[in-house]
Amino acid sequence: MRDSHGPAVPTDRAISALRPLPASAARLDRAGLLGQWQERNRAATLPHCIEQLHAHGNLDNLRRVTGDTGGAAAAYAGYWFADTDVYKTLEAALWHGTERQFVADTVELLAKVQDPDGYLVSYFQLAANRDRQWAELPSSHEMYTAGHLIQAAVAAARGASGDATALQLVDVARRFADLLVRRFGAGGEDAVDGHPEIETALVELFRATGHRPYLDLAARLVDLRGHGLLGPESRFGQRAYYQDHTPVREAAEATGHVVRQMYLLAGAVDVAVETGDAELLAAAERLWDSALASKTYVTGGQGSRHRDEAFGDAYELPPDRAYAETCAAIGGFHLAWRLLLATGRARYADEMERLLYNGIAASTAISGTEFFYSNPLQLRTGHDGSDEDAPGARLPWYRCACCPPNLARLMASLHTYTATGDLEGLQLQLYAQGSFAAFGRAVDVATQYPWDGTVTVTVTESTDAPWTLSMRVPAWCSDVRISDPDAVVADGYARIRRVWRAGDRVELTLAMPPRLVAAHPRVDAVRGTAALARGPVVYCLEHAGLPGELAGAVFEDLMLDASAPIDVVRDHPIVPVALAATARVSGAADAALYGPFDAAPPPRAGATVHAVPYHLWANREPGPMRVWLPVVPPPR
Amino acid sequence: MRDSHGPAVPTDRAISALRPLPASAARLDRAGLLGQWQERNRAATLPHCIEQLHAHGNLDNLRRVTGDTGGAAAAYAGYWFADTDVYKTLEAALWHGTERQFVADTVELLAKVQDPDGYLVSYFQLAANRDRQWAELPSSHEMYTAGHLIQAAVAAARGASGDATALQLVDVARRFADLLVRRFGAGGEDAVDGHPEIETALVELFRATGHRPYLDLAARLVDLRGHGLLGPESRFGQRAYYQDHTPVREAAEATGHVVRQMYLLAGAVDVAVETGDAELLAAAERLWDSALASKTYVTGGQGSRHRDEAFGDAYELPPDRAYAETCAAIGGFHLAWRLLLATGRARYADEMERLLYNGIAASTAISGTEFFYSNPLQLRTGHDGSDEDAPGARLPWYRCACCPPNLARLMASLHTYTATGDLEGLQLQLYAQGSFAAFGRAVDVATQYPWDGTVTVTVTESTDAPWTLSMRVPAWCSDVRISDPDAVVADGYARIRRVWRAGDRVELTLAMPPRLVAAHPRVDAVRGTAALARGPVVYCLEHAGLPGELAGAVFEDLMLDASAPIDVVRDHPIVPVALAATARVSGAADAALYGPFDAAPPPRAGATVHAVPYHLWANREPGPMRVWLPVVPPPR
Repeated sequence: MRDSHGPAVPTDRAISALRPLPASAARLDRAGLLGQWQERNRAATLPHCIEQLHAHGNLDNLRRVTGDTGGAAAAYAGYWFADTDVYKTLEAALWHGTERQFVADTVELLAKVQDPDGYLVSYFQLAANRDRQWAELPSSHEMYTAGHLIQAAVAAARGASGDATALQLVDVARRFADLLVRRFGAGGEDAVDGHPEIETALVELFRATGHRPYLDLAARLVDLRGHGLLGPESRFGQRAYYQDHTPVREAAEATGHVVRQMYLLAGAVDVAVETGDAELLAAAERLWDSALASKTYVTGGQGSRHRDEAFGDAYELPPDRAYAETCAAIGGFHLAWRLLLATGRARYADEMERLLYNGIAASTAISGTEFFYSNPLQLRTGHDGSDEDAPGARLPWYRCACCPPNLARLMASLHTYTATGDLEGLQLQLYAQGSFAAFGRAVDVATQYPWDGTVTVTVTESTDAPWTLSMRVPAWCSDVRISDPDAVVADGYARIRRVWRAGDRVELTLAMPPRLVAAHPRVDAVRGTAALARGPVVYCLEHAGLPGELAGAVFEDLMLDASAPIDVVRDHPIVPVALAATARVSGAADAALYGPFDAAPPPRAGATVHAVPYHLWANREPGPMRVWLPVVPPPR
Repeated sequence: MRDSHGPAVPTDRAISALRPLPASAARLDRAGLLGQWQERNRAATLPHCIEQLHAHGNLDNLRRVTGDTGGAAAAYAGYWFADTDVYKTLEAALWHGTERQFVADTVELLAKVQDPDGYLVSYFQLAANRDRQWAELPSSHEMYTAGHLIQAAVAAARGASGDATALQLVDVARRFADLLVRRFGAGGEDAVDGHPEIETALVELFRATGHRPYLDLAARLVDLRGHGLLGPESRFGQRAYYQDHTPVREAAEATGHVVRQMYLLAGAVDVAVETGDAELLAAAERLWDSALASKTYVTGGQGSRHRDEAFGDAYELPPDRAYAETCAAIGGFHLAWRLLLATGRARYADEMERLLYNGIAASTAISGTEFFYSNPLQLRTGHDGSDEDAPGARLPWYRCACCPPNLARLMASLHTYTATGDLEGLQLQLYAQGSFAAFGRAVDVATQYPWDGTVTVTVTESTDAPWTLSMRVPAWCSDVRISDPDAVVADGYARIRRVWRAGDRVELTLAMPPRLVAAHPRVDAVRGTAALARGPVVYCLEHAGLPGELAGAVFEDLMLDASAPIDVVRDHPIVPVALAATARVSGAADAALYGPFDAAPPPRAGATVHAVPYHLWANREPGPMRVWLPVVPPPR
């Protein structure tokens, strides 16, 4: 049992630039936004998820296998991979170290449900489905389910408790993993699961246990993918949906179902790092590059198509039909983290930051108990929100409830992603008020980031030898100031190397003027528009809160006067920092759907509007919203 | 048996402004484009469809019910509504009066397959499925299937032959229709089919037979819809998918699955016209208005979402992910025709024209044997065409092959949609070279429309009393000239009322300068772009055929210089009329996906490009295409 994740038990060939901090060595303070989110997760989201698991039959599904149907609904409830909602919630509880009764009861139940050979997928353990086990891998999610069980167990293994429940969960997970090794390991069946996830889980289990066959199976599964094992005509003829069209190390472009692509690449990086497979790591970086270059929203969200929950073609990025699934953003965060550790390149931490404050944060209501599954960048007047994949407001749960408990496990472990360490020193990757330590070095961080760009770092523990304190300088920042004159800013970090004493302080100031962002002209869907941003936070305009002067206007007729100043509003009643801009009303409201191309009539009356952080939208009354604002003069 | 369709046997309360010509009284000449299309349909598309029915097991599905499995594949092939592909093909053959062996064999087979009570859906006649009959109406398509059988029979009834095969087909269809009347008519089960179609078919069967219960059942089915009979949680909770969320006469907005919406409204107009139901007709007009005002592509196509093949929100009209299903365009054509007959308003004929030359025509390759199912208005460089719903080239057939035989039956009956008559005279609605007659009045039309705007009408038969020759003046035309000084242009028609003699000639000239079209600024997806059009024909730019000067440019970086003249090119090697415009290359090709909002670098080198009619795209090598062209200067 070890107390870290990431590539911290290198094999003899391991690649790794940075190491994660031990979970116990990072702490988020509730005075900061990330700490508030983590606390909300503990106090609201996690109990809510447990309630929902009870209410939606996920636990009954497991009980039914044991023959204990007292009180359980007659039929299996939800999707055949409903066990994973239990595992993700379990993982969240284990990271938090709370909800001990739920954890103990659930682990005991799992031990009962598990077959003698280690198999544990409640849907396929029902008598009627037993002969379908392993027979429907393109869609069965059996290895995917095993993966989430394993990840819960890894969280248990990392906990300091070492209590009987934790040991029992690790034992259950290992028994399932051992079954996978026997059945699908070297010399076994050549097969892959339609939904990746097992790959990264097995590497994490290898890290936690040192048991090499887990890593070997993960490596094997990464390389078996892309050879049509899922069927030549699977899923509407699209092998790319499963990333089964070409081996990951040969693929040129991120494609298909986004969550599958992100989870697969996370597993590939894990394998690459542990086996010293530079080619595989390069492939993951290449695919990440392709996604970031032309298939990623300004919020970090990915997935341009509701159909297949998939990447679109290059530059196909509609804001209204953005799918930008919450789980895809979480997968992207996991991938970027792994690439950061493997390479030490700041751009991966930049992307984690963009996702965290936008694509991921937008999914959760202020209450912590309602969620978006898809995260569009625009919602129009009159939107039909009856489809739960494109609702007008966050919902407490989903028929496919993958996202809420995935958020719960991410937020519960958020402290582990904020800083990294190496032999040379400590790297602050995401700025959060809290305490961070590694290798005998420790700092306290005080900041109101992302609402304010000032970060004060106080050394609380040091060694005698000189070491480097590295503080990331985000790519969005063009004006950085550091109190220490010896700081060197290069490659996305401000680095200070010296002998540090407890009590030493450094102040970093990242200037955060409001800025107007444009997309590449090939992004047809947002031509002639701009987005507002400040620091890492992308803003949006909502119909809710428009001033009275604009009450009579159709929301879609509002245009941004890009020549007017944009002011920072810190005393806004609803959000920590709003941006005040000037909106004008398009003069073309009464035009026909199609008409002659000529100059549009000049925009009419304008007024000051307050843009709010995108991640806080839909917390007032429901109504239209947009991130990309048409700019004056109209380009028509 | 009667020789027309449309509301030609009015009940005592019927509403009808215009009447269709008898099928035998309209003839398209092969010297004109519509006549060429009809001939291509007869010679290529129809035989191709018959071949495909054999190859894909549709006929075997029927044979299997009779126990004749000699040579048939073991399992039912295709979707459970695969019989409809047979019926549409049969209908096409009956309109053409060709493929008599196929018709005779198929009708004989149908008579054998039909159950004694009249039931005839081969999938649900298989022994294993018999207990599912009528039990799954939200998805079973049983009444939809009956509807297409009936429409084939109506085509048989309209044929002049009156031969035994035609009579037998009408008998088969009536036996199924009678079963529906017994089971679902007044006093029977309250139920509707998940896919409308039966409504319009029953009214047509009423028109052909005068049997009132068919009309009554159609009226009942129209009004039963919208009350949740398809289930409160049907189809992802979206009753609107089936238009079952609100009764059609109360609905405010076209929504849901487009083909379903169009077919339902066609049936509603048929019912309204025959029963004198002005409220129902007004509802259909209102829903049509809503679709045309904010949910219709410049090609006439409808359906903004691949997900659910559905309408989007108002102004949600992405050109790249336009679904614009071929069958939806055909349904829209049928609806517009019915509204034209009911009201006499030219705007409905305008819409038929737009659909015919763009949204519908684009679906079929020059060969007549390859088809698009969806009809996007943009295809990007590097498009992944592996999904058959968004291929890069037309395909010979589809897993869901609804569109090709639907095209076949439309094209086979195209002559019946070109002109109308009433007691006052003859109305030319779609300009086509050919002969048209009604009520003792007949004309020959000579024209190269839509490539040329001159239409010469020669009276070939007349009565002694004065009558009115009406010629539609399309809304796109702002300069119309008529050789007769007494012509009055109003409400979308040029009308000449006088005593006509055989040999009288009128020349109508509709000026067709190339024009630049813009979309309403609320159509975010095409902001800052323009489309090229000439007459009723929308143009597009294809990568294929770009001049050498632009060979090195990425297609998506091309911009239209809207200040340069646009020339008509009649000697183009590939298309009858091309448009020559000036394209420039965006200077922003190397920009990051997101960057600061400021003036883009000026566009670089330009060259003359030839835009081709949208409906002829993808007939050269595969490659990118777009209808909406970004204009210089770039709006970024």
